[in-house]
Amino acid sequence: MKNGLKVAVIGGGSSYTPELIEGFIERHEEFPVQELFLVDINEGKEKLEIVGELARRMIQKGGVPIHLTLTFDREEAITGADFVITQLRVGMLEARSRDERIPLRYQCIGQETTGAGGFAKALRTIPVILDICRDIEKYAPEAFLINFTNPAGVVTEAVNKYSTVNAIGLCNLPINTRKQLAEFLNVDTNEIEIEMAGINHLNWTTKIWIKNKDVTESFLKGEADLKGFNMNNIPDLEWNRDFLQALDALPCGYHRYYYKKDEVLKHQLEQLQETGTRADEVKKVEAALFKRYQDPNLSIKPPELAQRGGAFYSEAAVDIMSSIYNNKKDIQTVNVQNNGILSCLPDTASIEVNCVIDRQGAHPIQLTTKIDARIRGLLQVVKAYEEMTIEAAVHGDYAMGLLALITHPLVKSASVAEKIFQDILNENKTFLPQFFSESKTV
Amino acid sequence: MKNGLKVAVIGGGSSYTPELIEGFIERHEEFPVQELFLVDINEGKEKLEIVGELARRMIQKGGVPIHLTLTFDREEAITGADFVITQLRVGMLEARSRDERIPLRYQCIGQETTGAGGFAKALRTIPVILDICRDIEKYAPEAFLINFTNPAGVVTEAVNKYSTVNAIGLCNLPINTRKQLAEFLNVDTNEIEIEMAGINHLNWTTKIWIKNKDVTESFLKGEADLKGFNMNNIPDLEWNRDFLQALDALPCGYHRYYYKKDEVLKHQLEQLQETGTRADEVKKVEAALFKRYQDPNLSIKPPELAQRGGAFYSEAAVDIMSSIYNNKKDIQTVNVQNNGILSCLPDTASIEVNCVIDRQGAHPIQLTTKIDARIRGLLQVVKAYEEMTIEAAVHGDYAMGLLALITHPLVKSASVAEKIFQDILNENKTFLPQFFSESKTV
Amino acid sequence: MKNGLKVAVIGGGSSYTPELIEGFIERHEEFPVQELFLVDINEGKEKLEIVGELARRMIQKGGVPIHLTLTFDREEAITGADFVITQLRVGMLEARSRDERIPLRYQCIGQETTGAGGFAKALRTIPVILDICRDIEKYAPEAFLINFTNPAGVVTEAVNKYSTVNAIGLCNLPINTRKQLAEFLNVDTNEIEIEMAGINHLNWTTKIWIKNKDVTESFLKGEADLKGFNMNNIPDLEWNRDFLQALDALPCGYHRYYYKKDEVLKHQLEQLQETGTRADEVKKVEAALFKRYQDPNLSIKPPELAQRGGAFYSEAAVDIMSSIYNNKKDIQTVNVQNNGILSCLPDTASIEVNCVIDRQGAHPIQLTTKIDARIRGLLQVVKAYEEMTIEAAVHGDYAMGLLALITHPLVKSASVAEKIFQDILNENKTFLPQFFSESKTV
Amino acid sequence: MKNGLKVAVIGGGSSYTPELIEGFIERHEEFPVQELFLVDINEGKEKLEIVGELARRMIQKGGVPIHLTLTFDREEAITGADFVITQLRVGMLEARSRDERIPLRYQCIGQETTGAGGFAKALRTIPVILDICRDIEKYAPEAFLINFTNPAGVVTEAVNKYSTVNAIGLCNLPINTRKQLAEFLNVDTNEIEIEMAGINHLNWTTKIWIKNKDVTESFLKGEADLKGFNMNNIPDLEWNRDFLQALDALPCGYHRYYYKKDEVLKHQLEQLQETGTRADEVKKVEAALFKRYQDPNLSIKPPELAQRGGAFYSEAAVDIMSSIYNNKKDIQTVNVQNNGILSCLPDTASIEVNCVIDRQGAHPIQLTTKIDARIRGLLQVVKAYEEMTIEAAVHGDYAMGLLALITHPLVKSASVAEKIFQDILNENKTFLPQFFSESKTV
Repeated sequence: MKNGLKVAVIGGGSSYTPELIEGFIERHEEFPVQELFLVDINEGKEKLEIVGELARRMIQKGGVPIHLTLTFDREEAITGADFVITQLRVGMLEARSRDERIPLRYQCIGQETTGAGGFAKALRTIPVILDICRDIEKYAPEAFLINFTNPAGVVTEAVNKYSTVNAIGLCNLPINTRKQLAEFLNVDTNEIEIEMAGINHLNWTTKIWIKNKDVTESFLKGEADLKGFNMNNIPDLEWNRDFLQALDALPCGYHRYYYKKDEVLKHQLEQLQETGTRADEVKKVEAALFKRYQDPNLSIKPPELAQRGGAFYSEAAVDIMSSIYNNKKDIQTVNVQNNGILSCLPDTASIEVNCVIDRQGAHPIQLTTKIDARIRGLLQVVKAYEEMTIEAAVHGDYAMGLLALITHPLVKSASVAEKIFQDILNENKTFLPQFFSESKTV
Repeated sequence: MKNGLKVAVIGGGSSYTPELIEGFIERHEEFPVQELFLVDINEGKEKLEIVGELARRMIQKGGVPIHLTLTFDREEAITGADFVITQLRVGMLEARSRDERIPLRYQCIGQETTGAGGFAKALRTIPVILDICRDIEKYAPEAFLINFTNPAGVVTEAVNKYSTVNAIGLCNLPINTRKQLAEFLNVDTNEIEIEMAGINHLNWTTKIWIKNKDVTESFLKGEADLKGFNMNNIPDLEWNRDFLQALDALPCGYHRYYYKKDEVLKHQLEQLQETGTRADEVKKVEAALFKRYQDPNLSIKPPELAQRGGAFYSEAAVDIMSSIYNNKKDIQTVNVQNNGILSCLPDTASIEVNCVIDRQGAHPIQLTTKIDARIRGLLQVVKAYEEMTIEAAVHGDYAMGLLALITHPLVKSASVAEKIFQDILNENKTFLPQFFSESKTV
Repeated sequence: MKNGLKVAVIGGGSSYTPELIEGFIERHEEFPVQELFLVDINEGKEKLEIVGELARRMIQKGGVPIHLTLTFDREEAITGADFVITQLRVGMLEARSRDERIPLRYQCIGQETTGAGGFAKALRTIPVILDICRDIEKYAPEAFLINFTNPAGVVTEAVNKYSTVNAIGLCNLPINTRKQLAEFLNVDTNEIEIEMAGINHLNWTTKIWIKNKDVTESFLKGEADLKGFNMNNIPDLEWNRDFLQALDALPCGYHRYYYKKDEVLKHQLEQLQETGTRADEVKKVEAALFKRYQDPNLSIKPPELAQRGGAFYSEAAVDIMSSIYNNKKDIQTVNVQNNGILSCLPDTASIEVNCVIDRQGAHPIQLTTKIDARIRGLLQVVKAYEEMTIEAAVHGDYAMGLLALITHPLVKSASVAEKIFQDILNENKTFLPQFFSESKTV
Repeated sequence: MKNGLKVAVIGGGSSYTPELIEGFIERHEEFPVQELFLVDINEGKEKLEIVGELARRMIQKGGVPIHLTLTFDREEAITGADFVITQLRVGMLEARSRDERIPLRYQCIGQETTGAGGFAKALRTIPVILDICRDIEKYAPEAFLINFTNPAGVVTEAVNKYSTVNAIGLCNLPINTRKQLAEFLNVDTNEIEIEMAGINHLNWTTKIWIKNKDVTESFLKGEADLKGFNMNNIPDLEWNRDFLQALDALPCGYHRYYYKKDEVLKHQLEQLQETGTRADEVKKVEAALFKRYQDPNLSIKPPELAQRGGAFYSEAAVDIMSSIYNNKKDIQTVNVQNNGILSCLPDTASIEVNCVIDRQGAHPIQLTTKIDARIRGLLQVVKAYEEMTIEAAVHGDYAMGLLALITHPLVKSASVAEKIFQDILNENKTFLPQFFSESKTV
């Protein structure tokens, strides 16, 4: 990797971009971005320009020599890039809103990254990401693709299966887990270490060490109250102590959809009545954010962005890229190919585990804990859903998609799955051409 | 195996016993039972005597030299036996009724062999079967244990894990599937062959051959109506064609609990209101049966037994034992240890697949179809539940039991699982000593 | 499969063909061959005609309605065939003679099916067999390929990896093992059953049952003398009792090359001096045989053929084809794809184990014995050699071929491997075009 | 881990000890040993005292507060230790000399860590190490065992299988490989990184990076001459370029025993005539060393120790212990349990691969290269040998030991194996009680 780093951000007009820009400015010394391309599609022109202008002001104020380009020409952006970041949203928040509403119509949990909602998002997203990969293969074959686009695990697995691009799937859940545990346990972040095992958004913290001491058991036994240990965008429900000890691991926030299905569904249905779905809230937040971004006097990341949900996104992103760039060999929890690390999952599965990050990428480390039936059952059934979703997305295979939905623990039954799938297809026609080409019959 | 076969039937007072007796009489030439012991516990004395007397009359009428002994002395019955058949029901139909009612209380499917009901039955049954195994290890170490007791797959796996007994788990579902398919497709039973893959009560028919021709695809596409292809005791709901083709396999009747969860639950709740649970129906059938059995003029298996649900039980039982006895090397679908046949399940799992039956027992055959994510997901999550259930049953491990329930696709959420488990423990105190010993805290 | 069986024999001019013809005549009732095509290449014209005329006389005398065609047109022979039998020898006995001599030049064992000799044969044979497979894929896609051509395991694996043909690899070693054990133990062949585990020509008999009784241990302890239990073409050396008990299995004749390397090498070097290699002997036997075949009064398989070494070839061949044709579901030991049966080998490896033979082909059965380190080590290293040999043969990959040789336990060292490989290439130029095409550099 | 580190060195009287002492002194700041126990057996009293006195002088001169204790009381030394280092030699150099001579008697390679010589050493060593582990389990259950005793991989696997001690097997081959490659390629050691894959003393360097650039291919193609890249104690023979490219990896020095069997054997036999075995040379070196150690004016590690062969032993030892102590999370190549990292080996196998070293021990990292048949074959057969050797050593199982020898690629045949094993037993009677207890018959 030459000096003079080039980074291309696909979906550059995202409201999250100022997060990234802040990171690039603050850590410019260790990760000296020289060329930064924000790319978007024509439909996102307005947002790209707003965000781009803010980015420009931030860079100027930061006083770092980053050369910023706003463009709709993906090839130009990718050519010769060292890192390509994908943070796009096919169909934008409107699509997310539909993803969240359709399942609720049938008394199933509506969530943008898992269940039937995540399924719809995967179908829309995978072909677009693979199309980007075709460009990377051609114009920057040595580049790393840092994928933030959800469902990040599924997307990463699709890239590993259907392209030759070096891809790492990144999520801010692991970094948040560590930070929240540190806060919760009242220690410095660098004094806490955790082992995470599982797949994206279905990830168990199997070990917690404070200052090199294994505190997992005592933590799960609950010398302290766990309330508050939670991601912003997940209903705040407590885990039962007996349950935690039985599990012998700390579930992630997304586990509530599985372990507390009924309560979460009830909550979502109530919220739908009152304030709409999470997407509807986010739309308001985004509208306000973009208004704020337009303020020509604003040249820092505005504090309101914190409400958007992507806490520590910037830190996670620069962490991984800097460790690759600097061959740091530190440990981060990212999404990579399994190859025997979790022996209960296929070798080709994407998994989210602790990895050594070096110039060659992310290398998963053998777990110190054995994954037994307690974690294995849920993990395997969701991974099987993911595999089928990828096949359905890539090949426009309706039958496979139907089975994916039927297999998902958050979809109630085969008949409901069919209705949901029909609604997804009907309401995503423009975004799912693979299911509507001539040779396909739905 | 010497001539002069000895067979011990544990749970000899079961209403199913006349089925078995009929088989022993009709096929005495190929499977010459000489000593037949019907064993039961003291609480079952009356039933044992009624069934025993009927058996005696049947044998006499049949004119075969079977020497029948009714006994409460298990050791005597097992000593030197060639085959030990377990067809017991710990807690009798009262317990089954509770198993079916408790989950329904919490809007979960109530079924005696799977879900929370099957879980309760497994907890009660496994320690009793393992206790019988201790006797077999001592008094008839070469004997084959033919286990009919449900949940048959779970029980067989527990025996394989915790004893040295040669165990084969038997269910009449495979033989019924073949016979029903034959009837349905209007061919002779011996003209049809099927490949079954999965675990007990969660078994997919992955291949159907008629007269050596693979008709799987055309069958699933549905040149014919599948209605009517169903086990007696499962609500009669049709599979959707698209679904069958997507799955590329024929589900078994029990799959309705998973694939049509909502419809089945609705049906069960209605039925509970109207006629009670299936156990309540069965109690009536049994009462009538035992009344009928007492008729001193009855010396054949009465046709009413057919309503009881154990169709072809006798045929399945004598088939397996005769093939072992005669080293037949024919193919039957029974429950055995996995060891790599289904690579997606642990080696120690019990699986239900086509096996060659010979003097050494049942040897599973490599599948002709590859089990992919479509079947794998559900299969793995239920197997994980089964593994945890066995550990909970053997060790009286409450936490593990709770996780088993939480993992089961038919249990709605962790909080419901806890309530159900408490009810199971409260209503099964006498039958679950492993959870109530001094050293255990629930 | 229609009545009116068509069988194509590639390498029809082989001296073994009368064996096959005898089998087709004797078992015509159960396996009613209607069309029999003997195919050969132009270079084999004379032999094909001699053998063909004998076959015609045999059929006439046998009085069976087999219609015989001699042809050089492979497409015609294969089109619509039910079974294609490959028993060809690329380069004929001259090539075999070289295969046996080259290794001996460097003090390594010279054998036509394993070691460096088998390697050379594999390189010559695999492309030819795959070329035949191209025809089968086109002109008889439903046909079964019954491959006798050595190295039969390697060839079968190559076919499974590089074609879609239904292939079964057949060797007469398993049937001979069973027959010799029966003779040796003085029981009827149908009273003995054996479990074989391993790969072609490296196959351990892990269990022996006489009249359903497991006699393995007592057999290995050696209540009897094992001398004489040996294939014709393998130096007659005894196994040591301690060794057999340590191994807990009976090695096959070919194991002598591995377990008694020094003695066999010494024997081969002596024999080379005295009478030449085995190929040289066989050449004489063949010359005499073909002379004998030309006798117009001969209309049976002449007894001299027995000296040729293919004992029970005919029985093995008709056994497998008849069991497929008649959907017999009996058990035979043939070469098929592993897929988890021997968990220590890759899924795609060909293995030689007990299989159920039915209309769909050969289905391996789970072993009753666990393959541990005692067998595993040798098995794995030879299989690794085989995998590399296939890659070398298919792609003309010199480096891979060199590694294959270096890995083989019968090749002494890397420097010797290189010399042997050079000699193989030099002396097989016409038969190894894949190594001499323009784009290849040796 | 408290401050005030306690280290116990079993085999403290070894001539290597000054290496260790030097390391403890030089790196006292990062790894502050407070209590250092040198333990030995009574037979080693003289050597322990000589080495101990030198150590004392070195510590004094070094001016570090290490409190040194010389003792024969293993319990005292181990109690409360943080690290236990085993560097013992059961039977001392006399035994090694026999190990090297016995195989040569039968024209097999004689080497102290692999082949029949390594086998003998394993039989003597494993029971002693397991006995030490019993003490560690009792008196320092949290301690790390850093095992240097050869065969280090086999010993580590035995400890993992038969004790609960945290064991890491350490060899100086990986550190030497890296340093020699650096020297050879004329770069700084910290500019070179390598991926090693395999097992102890059979380890392939599968990747070489110089300043983050993958140079593996160009290195193997040989822009440079490899002569000189070699461990001191291994005959200096060149690898052939074609061979290296075929292998696509750099073999370690010990691979010469396998890949250049004949040349090495010839060399050993010549050397045996001229100067005796390597042990004989070492004896002379050691005699001179101990004489040198006695010089009361010597208070540094004498340069002559370099000839002994344990280059960088001290660095490797302090590296691993310091990384554990300081939770460094750096990467070192050590021997640990496999658990799926090398999917071609059993989960319980010890493997030697790149590991992250932290406070919890050594955690292997997923390889960046796929181990295919080229490496797999040799790796698996030697590992199978190792597994059998461990069983033989632990249980005194003659048959298993015989099979281990027969399976080893460096033992020529079964008959030779038997003779060698007899000689080993005869000449090691005092050291192999497990084979001579009453209940054993050889």
